[in-house]
Amino acid sequence: MTKLRYGGDYNPEQWPEQVWDDDYRLFEAAGIDTLTVGVFTWALTQPAADTYDFTVLDRIVERAAAEGRSVVLATGTGAHPAWLARAHPEVTRVDFEGRRHRFGQRHNSCPSSPVFRRLSTEMARRLAQRYARNPAIVVWHVGNEFGGACYCEHCAAAFRLWLRDRYGSLDRLNEAWYTTFWSHTFTAWDEIEPPSALTEHWHGPDHTAFQGITLDYLRFMSEAMLANFRDEKAAIRESDPGTPVTTNFMGAYRPIDYHRWAADLDLVAWDCYPPDDEHPEWMAFTHDLMRGIKGGRPFWLMEQTPSVTASRDVNPLKRPGVLRLWSWQAVAHGADAVLFFQMRAGRGACEKYHGAVIGHSGRDDTRVFREVAALGAELARAGDAVLGGRTPARVAILFDWDSWWALEISDGPSRLVRYQEVVRAYHRAVWAAGASVDVVPVTADLAPYDVVIAPVLHMVKGDLAGRLEDVARRGGTVLTTFLSGRVDEDDNAFLADVPGPLGDLMGIRVDEWDARPAEVVNPVDFGDLTAAGRLVFEIVIPRGAEVVATYRNDFYAGTPAVTRNAFGAGEGWYVATALDQDGVDRVVGRVLDRHGLRGPYPGVEAVQRGRATFLLNHGAEPVSVTAHADASELLTGVSVRRGDPLLLAPRDVLILVQ
Amino acid sequence: MTKLRYGGDYNPEQWPEQVWDDDYRLFEAAGIDTLTVGVFTWALTQPAADTYDFTVLDRIVERAAAEGRSVVLATGTGAHPAWLARAHPEVTRVDFEGRRHRFGQRHNSCPSSPVFRRLSTEMARRLAQRYARNPAIVVWHVGNEFGGACYCEHCAAAFRLWLRDRYGSLDRLNEAWYTTFWSHTFTAWDEIEPPSALTEHWHGPDHTAFQGITLDYLRFMSEAMLANFRDEKAAIRESDPGTPVTTNFMGAYRPIDYHRWAADLDLVAWDCYPPDDEHPEWMAFTHDLMRGIKGGRPFWLMEQTPSVTASRDVNPLKRPGVLRLWSWQAVAHGADAVLFFQMRAGRGACEKYHGAVIGHSGRDDTRVFREVAALGAELARAGDAVLGGRTPARVAILFDWDSWWALEISDGPSRLVRYQEVVRAYHRAVWAAGASVDVVPVTADLAPYDVVIAPVLHMVKGDLAGRLEDVARRGGTVLTTFLSGRVDEDDNAFLADVPGPLGDLMGIRVDEWDARPAEVVNPVDFGDLTAAGRLVFEIVIPRGAEVVATYRNDFYAGTPAVTRNAFGAGEGWYVATALDQDGVDRVVGRVLDRHGLRGPYPGVEAVQRGRATFLLNHGAEPVSVTAHADASELLTGVSVRRGDPLLLAPRDVLILVQ
Amino acid sequence: MTKLRYGGDYNPEQWPEQVWDDDYRLFEAAGIDTLTVGVFTWALTQPAADTYDFTVLDRIVERAAAEGRSVVLATGTGAHPAWLARAHPEVTRVDFEGRRHRFGQRHNSCPSSPVFRRLSTEMARRLAQRYARNPAIVVWHVGNEFGGACYCEHCAAAFRLWLRDRYGSLDRLNEAWYTTFWSHTFTAWDEIEPPSALTEHWHGPDHTAFQGITLDYLRFMSEAMLANFRDEKAAIRESDPGTPVTTNFMGAYRPIDYHRWAADLDLVAWDCYPPDDEHPEWMAFTHDLMRGIKGGRPFWLMEQTPSVTASRDVNPLKRPGVLRLWSWQAVAHGADAVLFFQMRAGRGACEKYHGAVIGHSGRDDTRVFREVAALGAELARAGDAVLGGRTPARVAILFDWDSWWALEISDGPSRLVRYQEVVRAYHRAVWAAGASVDVVPVTADLAPYDVVIAPVLHMVKGDLAGRLEDVARRGGTVLTTFLSGRVDEDDNAFLADVPGPLGDLMGIRVDEWDARPAEVVNPVDFGDLTAAGRLVFEIVIPRGAEVVATYRNDFYAGTPAVTRNAFGAGEGWYVATALDQDGVDRVVGRVLDRHGLRGPYPGVEAVQRGRATFLLNHGAEPVSVTAHADASELLTGVSVRRGDPLLLAPRDVLILVQ
Repeated sequence: MTKLRYGGDYNPEQWPEQVWDDDYRLFEAAGIDTLTVGVFTWALTQPAADTYDFTVLDRIVERAAAEGRSVVLATGTGAHPAWLARAHPEVTRVDFEGRRHRFGQRHNSCPSSPVFRRLSTEMARRLAQRYARNPAIVVWHVGNEFGGACYCEHCAAAFRLWLRDRYGSLDRLNEAWYTTFWSHTFTAWDEIEPPSALTEHWHGPDHTAFQGITLDYLRFMSEAMLANFRDEKAAIRESDPGTPVTTNFMGAYRPIDYHRWAADLDLVAWDCYPPDDEHPEWMAFTHDLMRGIKGGRPFWLMEQTPSVTASRDVNPLKRPGVLRLWSWQAVAHGADAVLFFQMRAGRGACEKYHGAVIGHSGRDDTRVFREVAALGAELARAGDAVLGGRTPARVAILFDWDSWWALEISDGPSRLVRYQEVVRAYHRAVWAAGASVDVVPVTADLAPYDVVIAPVLHMVKGDLAGRLEDVARRGGTVLTTFLSGRVDEDDNAFLADVPGPLGDLMGIRVDEWDARPAEVVNPVDFGDLTAAGRLVFEIVIPRGAEVVATYRNDFYAGTPAVTRNAFGAGEGWYVATALDQDGVDRVVGRVLDRHGLRGPYPGVEAVQRGRATFLLNHGAEPVSVTAHADASELLTGVSVRRGDPLLLAPRDVLILVQ
Repeated sequence: MTKLRYGGDYNPEQWPEQVWDDDYRLFEAAGIDTLTVGVFTWALTQPAADTYDFTVLDRIVERAAAEGRSVVLATGTGAHPAWLARAHPEVTRVDFEGRRHRFGQRHNSCPSSPVFRRLSTEMARRLAQRYARNPAIVVWHVGNEFGGACYCEHCAAAFRLWLRDRYGSLDRLNEAWYTTFWSHTFTAWDEIEPPSALTEHWHGPDHTAFQGITLDYLRFMSEAMLANFRDEKAAIRESDPGTPVTTNFMGAYRPIDYHRWAADLDLVAWDCYPPDDEHPEWMAFTHDLMRGIKGGRPFWLMEQTPSVTASRDVNPLKRPGVLRLWSWQAVAHGADAVLFFQMRAGRGACEKYHGAVIGHSGRDDTRVFREVAALGAELARAGDAVLGGRTPARVAILFDWDSWWALEISDGPSRLVRYQEVVRAYHRAVWAAGASVDVVPVTADLAPYDVVIAPVLHMVKGDLAGRLEDVARRGGTVLTTFLSGRVDEDDNAFLADVPGPLGDLMGIRVDEWDARPAEVVNPVDFGDLTAAGRLVFEIVIPRGAEVVATYRNDFYAGTPAVTRNAFGAGEGWYVATALDQDGVDRVVGRVLDRHGLRGPYPGVEAVQRGRATFLLNHGAEPVSVTAHADASELLTGVSVRRGDPLLLAPRDVLILVQ
Repeated sequence: MTKLRYGGDYNPEQWPEQVWDDDYRLFEAAGIDTLTVGVFTWALTQPAADTYDFTVLDRIVERAAAEGRSVVLATGTGAHPAWLARAHPEVTRVDFEGRRHRFGQRHNSCPSSPVFRRLSTEMARRLAQRYARNPAIVVWHVGNEFGGACYCEHCAAAFRLWLRDRYGSLDRLNEAWYTTFWSHTFTAWDEIEPPSALTEHWHGPDHTAFQGITLDYLRFMSEAMLANFRDEKAAIRESDPGTPVTTNFMGAYRPIDYHRWAADLDLVAWDCYPPDDEHPEWMAFTHDLMRGIKGGRPFWLMEQTPSVTASRDVNPLKRPGVLRLWSWQAVAHGADAVLFFQMRAGRGACEKYHGAVIGHSGRDDTRVFREVAALGAELARAGDAVLGGRTPARVAILFDWDSWWALEISDGPSRLVRYQEVVRAYHRAVWAAGASVDVVPVTADLAPYDVVIAPVLHMVKGDLAGRLEDVARRGGTVLTTFLSGRVDEDDNAFLADVPGPLGDLMGIRVDEWDARPAEVVNPVDFGDLTAAGRLVFEIVIPRGAEVVATYRNDFYAGTPAVTRNAFGAGEGWYVATALDQDGVDRVVGRVLDRHGLRGPYPGVEAVQRGRATFLLNHGAEPVSVTAHADASELLTGVSVRRGDPLLLAPRDVLILVQ
C-alpha cells in the first residue's frame, strides 16, 4: 500500500447483516481502507470447548475483502468466553488483594494458566490456518492491550521458575533482594510468594517492604504476557510466514516493559487516548516513545477516538479540527496508519457512548462524520510522500521501565516524584525548542546522538555509564538529574557517592538530600532567570563541575542546583532538583544551543519526517512563521519559497516537502 | 383515630421495668399516643432455634395497651440473632467484594437464604397469631429499612431463576445485555455471576463493564427484598386480615425501587434523616416522592430525630423550632403520623448518642423534651382538619429508579451528573414557585397534570413517550433535559437520533455532546438572564422547536441550550445542559406561568393539603405575606380575612383552613 | 555506666566482615558506645525448624565486646522466617478485612499462634542461655515495635477465653455490650466473632455497630501482644535474673495500651519519629508520656533518625543543629540514652534510603557524620550530671487509652474530635508556659500534683472521679473538657446528667450538644480575649459554677463555654468546646497562675531534670533570657550568675546546673 492506512476497529458481529451495507457505503464516503476485526470474538468463534465456528467471521472477512478493504485480523483472545471461566476457574485472575475473580470484564485471563495458554494458542493457530492465505489480511493483531497482573498459584509457580532462571541459586537471589534485612532469607524456592497486599505490600502496589521482589514480579509479569504473545505469534507463523504480527500498545503504560517486547513485534502499534483534549506534547512524547521501541521504524496509530471516550469520569469532546490536527501529528511523528476505535457505535454495555465514526442514528451528516471523511480525503492525497519516512533526531531521551518501576516503588526520599512527569518535562523542553528527538531504551545505540538526556535515571545497568561517558568524550552532552545513579540492576544502592557510576561524568558528589511537600519551593538562581525547585533537593558538592545555578533558600543556599562538567570533548550536566518547566527549558535550551539544535519554527510544533516538515498549530490563535527552505505544501500543492511567510490558522497543518 | 399520630420507636426491653413507669409519665406529658415496638427483638423472641419466648414482648404490648397507647408492632427481623448466624452461615451476606460476612451489625440477612426466609416468615406468623387480636396494634411493621445487597451463591441461583423468568431464553438475555461485545455471550445459565468487584465491576458499584447485568441485579435485589416483605406479610395475613402492613422506607434510597413495592404496602412510611439541618426543600421533595408511591395517599413519618443523629461524622443539632417546623412540614406534605426515633436513649452501642425524646438522665426539663411536649399539644389540637387530606397538584415530576440506575452506572458521558441532583433542582424550582407538585413513577396516570417534568429521563420504557405526547397534545407542557431518551428498557441505545422516542415531542435532534469538569461553565443566554450551564453540553439541532436560550461559549456558541416545541395544543421543552438553579427556575417559571400555577405566598413554603394551606417560614428572618382567602388559623383559632397581612416569625407555621 | 549512652541499631550481618573494621573506626570517631544488635535475625539464628545457628551473632557480639561497646541484644522475633510461614501458615496474621496473609513484611506474627509463641519463646530462651553471662549485654530487647492486630481463628478463640475471664458470664457480657440493642444477645461464647470489616465494622476500624466488642478487642489485642513479651521475658529470666528487659515503644501509639504494659517492663524505651521536622512540642509531649509510663523513671530514646526517614510520602531532612537540639531535648525530658536507627545504611529493600550515621559511601566527612560525632563528644562530657535525674512536675495531664479508644470509635457526636489533638493542645499550653508536667495514667497517684488536667476524659473508671475530687478538695485544680464523663468502663452512658461522675466537681450539667464541621467557629468570649470554639459545642447549665467565658453565636449565645467551680479548697474547670490554642492557653494559664507554676524562661523550651535546667531554642532566631539562678553551664563549664543575660543562638542548647 502506498498510502497512509485509514480505518479502525469494526465489530459488525454486533449488528444485523443488513446494516453492513450502510457501513460500507459510509466507509466509501469517508475513504476508509483498513478494518480491524475480530478483537473480541472468542465466544463467537469457539462457542463451546469442542466447537469452533467461523461462519460469522468468514462473512466479515469475505465482505471486507470483496469491498477491497484491508483487514487487521485479531486473534480475539483479549477476553475469554463465559463457558471457559465456568469450566476452568484457573483462567480468571487473582488480583493484588488475593481475590480470585470470576467471569467478567476483559483482559481477564491469567497469563500463566495452562488452559488459557493452550486454548488461546489454538485459536490463533486455527485463525491463521483459515485466513493466512487471504490477501486482505495485512496484519495479525494478537490479543488486545496486554496489561494488568495476576497473583494466582500458577503465576506463583511460574514466578519461581523465572527466578531460578534469573538467579540460579537462592544465595544469589537473597543477595539481590537484600533479604538479610527483616529476616527474609529464603531457604526454599516455594517460600517465595507473589508480592501483593497479602505479603510484602501496604497501601497498594507501590508500597513494598522489599523492592527486589516487587521489581522482579513486575519484570516477570511483563514477560509472562510477552510469552502469551509469543505463543500466539508462533502458532500464526505455522501457517503464515510473513504477514506482520503485532498487538496494540498503550503508550507509556507502566506494567508492560515494551522495550523488552520489541524484538518479538513486527510492527509497533498503539492506542492513543490522551488524558484530556489539550496537551499536544503528551502525544508528541508518546509517539516518540512508541517509535523508539523498534529503533525509529514507523508505527501504527491503532486506535484513537474520533470524538469522545466513555470510560472516564468526564469525557470531553474533541473540538472541530482536533481530529485532523492530531492525526497529522501522529503521522509527523512516524505513524503509517491512522485508525479509530471505532467505526460504528455499539448499542449496549460500557462503550456504547464511546465515540464512533458512525453513531447510533447511522447519519452521514454529523459534524464528526464530516470531519472523518474530510481527513480521509487528505490522507489519500498525502500518503506516499511521508510513508516509511524516518525522524532525523540528534537528541535522545532515555526511557527505562526499570528506573520507572524502581523509582516509584522506592521508600524514600519522595513519593511525589513521578517518573513520567520528570521525563515529560525534559521532552517538552526539547519539543518546544523544535528539535527532533527520539525516546529510546537505555540499551539503544547512542552513536547517532549529540545530546543524551537521562532524567531520573534511578537505576544504572550494565555498561550504560560507560556508554554515556563515550557520548561526552566524543563531544556530546549528557544530562541527568536528581535521583539518578542510585541503584544497580538489583535495586541495591551503589556503595559509592551519589550519583554512583555517573559521578565521574557529572563531576560532582551528592552529600545528602532533602524532600519537601509539593508546595515548598526553593528558587533556583540562574543569574538572569529564577526558576522553581521542588520536591527533592540534593545537596551537591562539585568535584570538578562548574556551577550553573544555585539554590536561593535554606541552609544550603548558594550551593549548586545545576552543574556542568567538562568531560572529554563534551559535557555532563546535572540538575539536582525538580525544576519547573521554565528551569528545565533553560537547562535544555543551553544544551541544545551548544549543538545548534533548536528548530527554525517557533510558535508551532515543527516535526521532521523524511523529506517532510510538518507544521502544526495547536493553539487557538493563528500563527505566522517564515519558511525555512523552498518546498511544496503537500495538502494544497502550493509552492513555498524560503523566506515566505506561512500563516497557520488555529489547529491548522502545513506539510512542507523539499 | 382522628388525630395525627405522635410517638415513635420505643425499646423498653433495653432497660429495667421500673423505668417504664417514668417512660409513660413522660409520654403523658408529651402527648405521645403511638409506640413502635419490637423492631430488633428477634434474639429476644427466639433465643434459640427451637425456643420462642414472648414474655417480655407481651409485657411491653400489654403495658402500652393498658396505658391507652397504639402500637406499631414490628416483626423484628431486621437483624438476625447470633445463634442463627453461627448455626447457618448462609444467613449472613456476601458483600460486593465477595466476602462472606459473619455475625454482626443489622440488616444483615441474605434475602435469598432459605433458612432466613423460613425463620423470618415463621416469626411474623407467630407474632400475628399472638397479637393480631390486640386492638392496640394499629400497624404491622415488617423488618426494618430494607436495603443493601448480597452476592452469595443463593442469590446467584435466585438471580438466574429471575433472569429465566424475565428473558425466557439465553438468546434474548444475550441480546438485552449486548453480550457480543467483549466476548460475553452466555451459553448456559450457570455461567452468569452476580456483577461484583470480582466479575464485571471496577472502582465500585457504579463502574461496570456490562450495564445490562448490573441493572438487572439492581432490579433483582430490590425484588428479592420485596419477596422477604411479602413472605412476612402473607404470614401476618394468615391471622390478621385487615391491619395495615408496612415497613419503613428511606426516602430517595437508590437500592430499592419503592415504586415496584407500592402494591404490596398498605401504607407508606418513611424515616426522615436529611443530610443537614438546613434544607427544607430536601424534605419537601422526599415527602412528595414518598406520597407519590401510593398515588398520593397520606403516609407516615415513621422516624425523625428530635435533636441529633449519631451515625454521621458530624451530627448537628436541630435548632429550636426546627423540630416543630419540620414536623408540620411533613404533615403539610401528606403525613398522618409524626413519629420519632427514639422515645428513650439507649445506654450503649452505636446509637447511644442518637437523639431521643427522653435522654440518659431521664429529665423532663431539657429543651428538647419541652419542644416535643409543646408539639404534642399542637398536633392534638390540629389533627382532624388535615388527617387524610390530599394534595391537589397539577404539576408532576417523574421519578424513575431505572433511569437513576442506568444513568449512574453508565460509562460516559459524565459521572458528575447525579440523577437526584438534577431531579431535585427541578422540584426545587416548582416548590419555590409555590406550586403543588407530585413526584410520581413513570407508570403514573398523567391525566391529572397540566405540567409533566421528566428530568434526565435516561431510559424510556413502554408507552411512556406516547403518554407524554398525549399530555402535550391536550394542551399540557412536558419538559425534559439532557441525557433523556437515550436507552430502552434493556439499557441499549435507541438506534435513532437523540432524544430517541422523545424527539418528535421535543422537535429537536442532538448531534453530539460534550462533557467538562464541574468548574467549567458555559453561560446560557436567555436574553434577559444569563444562567450557568455545566457538566454536559448537548449540541442541539432544532427540527421545529423554537430556541429559548443559547450557549454563549465554545465552538457551539449561539446554538440552543433550551428549546420549546409546539406540539398539539401544548408544548415540549428541552434543556440541553445542567443549568444552575437560576436557569432551572427560569425555565420552570415560564412553564408554570403558561398554566398559571405559581402559588400566592412568595417567601414562605406554602403547601396545600385538603382544606388546609400550610405556611412555613424556614428562614431566620420574619416574613410577612398577604392572606389569599378567608380562613381560620388552625393552631390559634384566629380568623383571617383575604388581604390581611400574615406575619410569620422565623421557623413559624400557620395553618389556614378554609 | 555513668554517661548517657550513645549509639543505635547496628546490623552488620548485612555486610561483609571487612566492613566491620570501618564501622568501628567510625564509631570511635563518633563516640558511639552502645549497639543494638539482632533485631531481625530470626532467619539467621534459626535457618530451619530444627537448626539453630549463632555463628554470625556470636561474632557480632564478640566484636562489640572486644571493642568495649555495650550491647542491647534483641531477641529478633519481630519478623518470622520464611520457612516458618510456609510450614505453619497459622503464624501469619488475618487482617481486619478477613484476609489471611502469607509471608512478607515484618511485625507479621499472629500473637495467639501456638507455634509462634512456642518458637519465639524458645529463641529468647536460647539467646539468654548463650549470652546472659556476657557482660557487654546491658539490655534485652524483646521483639520490635509491637503493634498491629490479628483477626484469625486462634485470636478469636483467645478472645473468647479473655472475655470469659473478664465477664464470667454471658449475661454480664451482654449487659456490658448492651446487646439487647439490634438483637445481638449472645447465647454461646463461640457466637462471638472478632469485630472486623466482616462483622461489626463499616468504614474501617473506627466505625463499629457495637463499641463494647470493639473496645474489648482493642484491650484484648494489646494484652495478647503483652503476653508475647511476657513469654520471652520469662524465658530470658530463666538464664538471666537481672539484666533489664525492654522493647521499643512508639510514643502515643493507639493500638497498644502501654500503661497496661508498664509493670512488665524494666525500662521504657521508645522510637522517636516525629511527623515532620518542626514541632518540638510533639516530642516534648511524647517524652513526657513515655516517662510517665513507669512513674517518671528515666527512659531510653531507642531510635531516632540522624537525618531522614524513608517510609513517608515525603521524607524531610533534619536541618543542621536539629539532631543535637532534639537529642538534648530527649535527655532534658528524661532520656538516659540517645540511640539512632541506624548506624550504617543497608543497601537494599525499603529502608535503604533511611538516614544512617554511616551512609552508602562510608564517608566520615558528610555533614551528618560530623554532627553525630560532635554530639557524641558533648554527651560524653555531660552525662553524669543528668543521668538518672527526675522531673519535678506539679502539673499532671491524664492520658488514657480507654478514653482514646472509646472516643474515637464512638458514633456521635463528632468524628472530627481526635483524642490526641485535644490532649496535645493542653500539654502544649503547659509546655509553652514553662511548667514541668507529667503525662500520667488515670491510675496514677495524684497526690504530687497541684493541677490535674484531664482533656476529653470520655470514660471515667473506678474511683477516678473521687480521686479528682480529692485533688480539688485539698486546694488543687482539676480541669476537664467537653465529651468527658460520658461513659463507664463498659462504654455505656452514665444514666445521669453529663458530665456524669464529674458533675459535682465541675458544678454544671450539660443539657445538650451541637456538632459542626471544622470550618464553623463559634467565638468564645473571655472578656479581654476572644478565642475560637469548634467541632463540639456543649450547652452548659451552671449548677454552682461561675462562668469564665461564653459563646458568642447561635441560639445558645451568652451561655457558658468555660466554667470554674469552687470545690473544697480548690477548683474544677470545665471547657465545653474545642478551643483553639489561644483559648486553651488562656484557660491553662489562669490555672497555672493560681498555683504560681509558670516557668521563668519565656521564649525557649525550659525543662527541669534533677539539678539541671535545660534551655532549648527551637526557633530560627537567637533568643535572650535572663538567668534565674546561679549555675554552671554544663557543656561549656561557664559560670552563670542569677540575672545574667543568656543568649541562645538558633537551635542552641544551654544546660544550667545548680
